[in-house]
Amino acid sequence: MGAPGFTGSPLDRVDHIRNDGDAFNALLNDWRGRVLGLDGLDPQVSAEGRLVWQSLADVALDLDLILLGLHEERPHFVPIHSGQGGAPRSPAVWRALATLPAEEAAIYGTARSLIDWHNGHRFCGQCGGPTKTFRAGWGRKCDDCGKEHFPRTDPVVIMLAEYAGRVLIGRQSAWPAGNYSALAGFLEPGESVEEAVRREIFEEAGVRCGAVRYVTSQPWPFGGSQLMIACIAQAESDILNIDTKELEDARWVSRDEVRAALEDAPNKSFGAPPPFAIANTLFRRWVAES
Amino acid sequence: MGAPGFTGSPLDRVDHIRNDGDAFNALLNDWRGRVLGLDGLDPQVSAEGRLVWQSLADVALDLDLILLGLHEERPHFVPIHSGQGGAPRSPAVWRALATLPAEEAAIYGTARSLIDWHNGHRFCGQCGGPTKTFRAGWGRKCDDCGKEHFPRTDPVVIMLAEYAGRVLIGRQSAWPAGNYSALAGFLEPGESVEEAVRREIFEEAGVRCGAVRYVTSQPWPFGGSQLMIACIAQAESDILNIDTKELEDARWVSRDEVRAALEDAPNKSFGAPPPFAIANTLFRRWVAES
Repeated sequence: MGAPGFTGSPLDRVDHIRNDGDAFNALLNDWRGRVLGLDGLDPQVSAEGRLVWQSLADVALDLDLILLGLHEERPHFVPIHSGQGGAPRSPAVWRALATLPAEEAAIYGTARSLIDWHNGHRFCGQCGGPTKTFRAGWGRKCDDCGKEHFPRTDPVVIMLAEYAGRVLIGRQSAWPAGNYSALAGFLEPGESVEEAVRREIFEEAGVRCGAVRYVTSQPWPFGGSQLMIACIAQAESDILNIDTKELEDARWVSRDEVRAALEDAPNKSFGAPPPFAIANTLFRRWVAES
Repeated sequence: MGAPGFTGSPLDRVDHIRNDGDAFNALLNDWRGRVLGLDGLDPQVSAEGRLVWQSLADVALDLDLILLGLHEERPHFVPIHSGQGGAPRSPAVWRALATLPAEEAAIYGTARSLIDWHNGHRFCGQCGGPTKTFRAGWGRKCDDCGKEHFPRTDPVVIMLAEYAGRVLIGRQSAWPAGNYSALAGFLEPGESVEEAVRREIFEEAGVRCGAVRYVTSQPWPFGGSQLMIACIAQAESDILNIDTKELEDARWVSRDEVRAALEDAPNKSFGAPPPFAIANTLFRRWVAES
């Protein structure tokens, strides 16, 4: 079936080293160290479709480095860039994800999320003072009020409503023609996963749902750092009332239609999301349930 | 079995009104409006153990109000206080939660999380400029660079490792003597729920786990705004290697021991978390599985 995209990083995050200045400095001086090559926020990709790593010796001395983790005793770093936070996805990164091995996509995703977070937290939200990196790049601390800030992830629910053997898919007007996916939205303060799933389906499609079951989860490194939580909800009706500000269209599809989309069959009725998107995993799991 | 704490709010969040200035202003002038009574970040509680609501007419005109939602057409608000963000739990709020009906605890939790978020985001993390409330209190916008900030929730995994019919519980030194709970920790960028569960159990207790199954989720309004994601993981061994910086103790307990703790039996071997904590729900679900 395949694991969700951006999971399966082989790196050990070595949380205990982040708080240990001496241990971190030793890694910064370890000749085995590797530094992830990036073009802005996009990955550099080799002719073989793999991530490109530089040696520590090739990297400017004044770069602020994040310790991504250890693999076979070798420290892996990524520099904190000063590029814009929340940069949109480029065609280059989409092409790269088509060739990167799953575990390398997971490393890249973690690096991208962290850089994005640093760029968006150069100042303290509490007092407005400048912040500085600490904890081996896994935090920023305010120079003025001392508040410590830690990399955040935003939970997003992504789900299929199910009714009489069919599931609800939707599309946004900005997507390529014919492409559909699962509905999705940010979980809000004061909600459980199950409540957010029901609210989002009702807001976007006007459908009330009862039982919600969790399927799987995935980190998503675009537009910040998101935790995608994939669920299937039992709809109480198939009558749609689409919020056209959110969705251009939504419709119910059968397992055969989802299968055709996943196989990119000539007679497919919609275009499916790419394999590294959790909506693809969610479709595969639902089809396999039959 | 009971739903997890802080879920089941009867309020309709009316997302469409948040972006509609005219509709929001109409609600601010609706005589049916109710404003949640707070003492700092703690709830005001009536003699009957219920939340206290004021009428809009009783509230100072210059208060910035968050639209919590509608219930039976009546708008519900909470003022954005200027108190310190991330205030610790007080004994008063713990007492209140023992008497508040579940749906009122859910409303209070949402309000507290939002106020906490506003207090921590008075300045823009990107440029350091001052931010102002917008979207009916469900966002802040930077005066200087225009960046929009939205209320955040931090996913936290909370889990039982399971081995040979027993589960792993732990305690922190700051807790009341004899109290134990499930292990827990913040999910990091680049991790799935399942990966975070395995990493946290290994970091805190030295136990490797295989399959992870999701059980349930809960919003948690203390120390910011957290999404608690409760899971059970299959341990590969019961040999512990406890990180004493994180945990004072950890040990394996049987279903009978968990049952005795939940029932507060005289012969209980540990003190269980309160019913509004998801660890309590997780224990109940695990006991019911037998």
